Amino acid sequence: MSTSADTPAAPATAPEAASGAERLWSVEEHLEDILAKIRPLEPIELQLLDAQDCVLVEDVTVPAALPPFDNSSMDGYAVRTVDVEGASEEFPAVLTVIGDVAAGSGDLPVVGPGEAARIMTGAPLPPGAEAVVPVEWTDGGTGGGPASAMAAHSAAPDGGSGEVRVHRPVTARAHVRARGSDVAAGDLALAAGTVLGPPQIGLLAAIGRASVKVRPRPRVVVMSTGSELVQPGEALAPGRIHDSNSFALTACARDAGAIAYRVGAVDDDAATLRSTLEDQLIRADAVVTSGGVSVGAYDVVKETLSELAGDEGSVSFRKLAMQPGKPQGFGRIGRDRVPLFALPGNPVSCYVSFELFVRPAIRALMGLAPFDRETVRAVCAEEVASSPEGRRQFLRARYADGTATVVGGSGSHLVKSLADADALIVVPEDTTSVAAGTEVDVILLG
Amino acid sequence: MSTSADTPAAPATAPEAASGAERLWSVEEHLEDILAKIRPLEPIELQLLDAQDCVLVEDVTVPAALPPFDNSSMDGYAVRTVDVEGASEEFPAVLTVIGDVAAGSGDLPVVGPGEAARIMTGAPLPPGAEAVVPVEWTDGGTGGGPASAMAAHSAAPDGGSGEVRVHRPVTARAHVRARGSDVAAGDLALAAGTVLGPPQIGLLAAIGRASVKVRPRPRVVVMSTGSELVQPGEALAPGRIHDSNSFALTACARDAGAIAYRVGAVDDDAATLRSTLEDQLIRADAVVTSGGVSVGAYDVVKETLSELAGDEGSVSFRKLAMQPGKPQGFGRIGRDRVPLFALPGNPVSCYVSFELFVRPAIRALMGLAPFDRETVRAVCAEEVASSPEGRRQFLRARYADGTATVVGGSGSHLVKSLADADALIVVPEDTTSVAAGTEVDVILLG
Repeated sequence: MSTSADTPAAPATAPEAASGAERLWSVEEHLEDILAKIRPLEPIELQLLDAQDCVLVEDVTVPAALPPFDNSSMDGYAVRTVDVEGASEEFPAVLTVIGDVAAGSGDLPVVGPGEAARIMTGAPLPPGAEAVVPVEWTDGGTGGGPASAMAAHSAAPDGGSGEVRVHRPVTARAHVRARGSDVAAGDLALAAGTVLGPPQIGLLAAIGRASVKVRPRPRVVVMSTGSELVQPGEALAPGRIHDSNSFALTACARDAGAIAYRVGAVDDDAATLRSTLEDQLIRADAVVTSGGVSVGAYDVVKETLSELAGDEGSVSFRKLAMQPGKPQGFGRIGRDRVPLFALPGNPVSCYVSFELFVRPAIRALMGLAPFDRETVRAVCAEEVASSPEGRRQFLRARYADGTATVVGGSGSHLVKSLADADALIVVPEDTTSVAAGTEVDVILLG
Repeated sequence: MSTSADTPAAPATAPEAASGAERLWSVEEHLEDILAKIRPLEPIELQLLDAQDCVLVEDVTVPAALPPFDNSSMDGYAVRTVDVEGASEEFPAVLTVIGDVAAGSGDLPVVGPGEAARIMTGAPLPPGAEAVVPVEWTDGGTGGGPASAMAAHSAAPDGGSGEVRVHRPVTARAHVRARGSDVAAGDLALAAGTVLGPPQIGLLAAIGRASVKVRPRPRVVVMSTGSELVQPGEALAPGRIHDSNSFALTACARDAGAIAYRVGAVDDDAATLRSTLEDQLIRADAVVTSGGVSVGAYDVVKETLSELAGDEGSVSFRKLAMQPGKPQGFGRIGRDRVPLFALPGNPVSCYVSFELFVRPAIRALMGLAPFDRETVRAVCAEEVASSPEGRRQFLRARYADGTATVVGGSGSHLVKSLADADALIVVPEDTTSVAAGTEVDVILLG
């Protein structure tokens, strides 16, 4: 793997101070550089359900009034109000039923004086009628007491004929939904920038839209690098470990909204890495690699991508003032300038780097606000004995009820403690220890 | 559609009181009945990435120590501590470099007195060596000052030979990650009941698991019913409207974690509905329908499913003390007793019913805690002039900074206001009006 140099016990003099060469980038500087170079993906027209959770890029206006016609909000009888004036159970208004108006009916009877049409919820108010009397306010045409429901049409096909006794008066427009009372033609249904959740998709369908223009989900290609990596489920030869980063990163990318493709582990060989990248670029809106970005002799990601220039793009490798996650690569490669994130290979460094840098970038590609993780102030349950000066430390923690408790050690190989954590405690650059009970910033991990 | 009888202006005497027949179920009673009848899906073995967001049903123990061997946490030199005692930049310890240990190396050199092996992060600590000196604390074999990195192996294939000058001493085990320091063989990696997010998937991969036993995502078949429904994108004949519920419900089901299949709109015809249900049951862990559940003459969902008995299952139709969403059907159908939710057809009633009843059920099928929506107390920004006595009202609202503002009217056909809302204000059964500034319960919609 030959990757990050994140070690728990920070030496009194940091290696970079000794070598005195490279400057450290702050977390913000690196993130700003990334977001400045990310362009939201080009919008495409997608079928409604394929556009779920995507960002609309057009103002959608209403083509025709909704509802398209006056319709009944109840199952009942469409009547002229004057015909039911003063009606009561004792002295019902008796009307002639001239037919059924079911939902979807196009051919409507005309309701004349002394007449009623049996009408279903959502069915058009027939001409002549001014209001709807709910079936429960009538005898339902049975000649008996108040009805609790209509007889099913299939069982009683002549339910839309005969007489109905109405027990209560109604005012004009009662139980009628007016044409356009939801939205009128020309109204703005949804503004560009709206994220399409279920109710928005429902509205688009309701106004007749089958497809909409949105920014698509980015296709993110994930690969880990390292000659030591073995596919889970396969036996380990001496010196080998199982590949976990490509799985965790693929899951992370999906969780951030991307369509993720896991390529798997690539050997520490420049030619293999280069040809794999070339093969994969065709389906990539972004590439995420792990490993090979530090100061070792076999750090082929750094080696291969540092050489890129011109049409092949350029990738910068830098050291960040953070722990874990000090060595980071970011740039754009290929003719399409596909963003590439070269994350450190230690699993914890890799995960924290994704959260801080790749997740916001994926959201930016979708046209979403980059940051969605909540940061809260919380009491640090236990002392943090030492934190490296000049580096922002992210400690795995569990958060509950305003308190954050560190989980496991700070070693960036500790995968188990990462799986036990649901938050990251942020220890600022100028803080070298945190007393128990102190308030700290805590990033909640979804 | 002929569906729910949810009307904004509640009459002084409610229809059900007039007819005096059916009792009203409370929201809790209906929900309890549903959850009592939902069994979590049978677990299946899934590939890691297919198990994302699923619930583990086995205790996963660690088969072999992680890391599997002592390894370096830095790019540097593996040394015997006595050989670098007292070393400084002025008086470096000069060691003979006997070879490279790359990550993945199986064949390791033995480090003898006065010797060092160049070692990469993650590579096994070779026999004889007791600690690792970071490359930045050496001359990197160049004979010059402190190194900032190793020369790439590809550029300098003999970097693993010659001499190295070490500028600082190290204690035993410095920059060495001990075998088993992450997890030991036999440790519990993840307990049954854990939800598999990215870090948990990473841990499973790291301990070599290619697949795990989880409860799968439920396959939810969604159909709307109503002879008036037209596919979005198609022209509307008189009396027709576009189908929106099947789109919104499919999106809702996915959002809840299901694999959702949208069947589309089915006509108000009992034979069609029955044969469609029979066809779809083969791929359904749950079925959600909308429409046809009220008191109209063409409410075929109620008609068709009320008739079921014995091997075909049974579905209960009832009235709930809520608005919107009064008429509801729930039961289990077919030989496999597939849960079926017959929701009212008004779009708002349909959506609110999904949130209150189907979302918890989908989560229960997955083995998750049924409730995940947050309910907060918030100040109601404006007066709610009237709310029907004896019914719990759910009002569409926007929530921000502790204040909830009602959006749109209470008519259950108002799709636009649903799309503008991000919360539901809950007005209890015994409350008939809410003064502006009063605290209310607010359900936050994701």
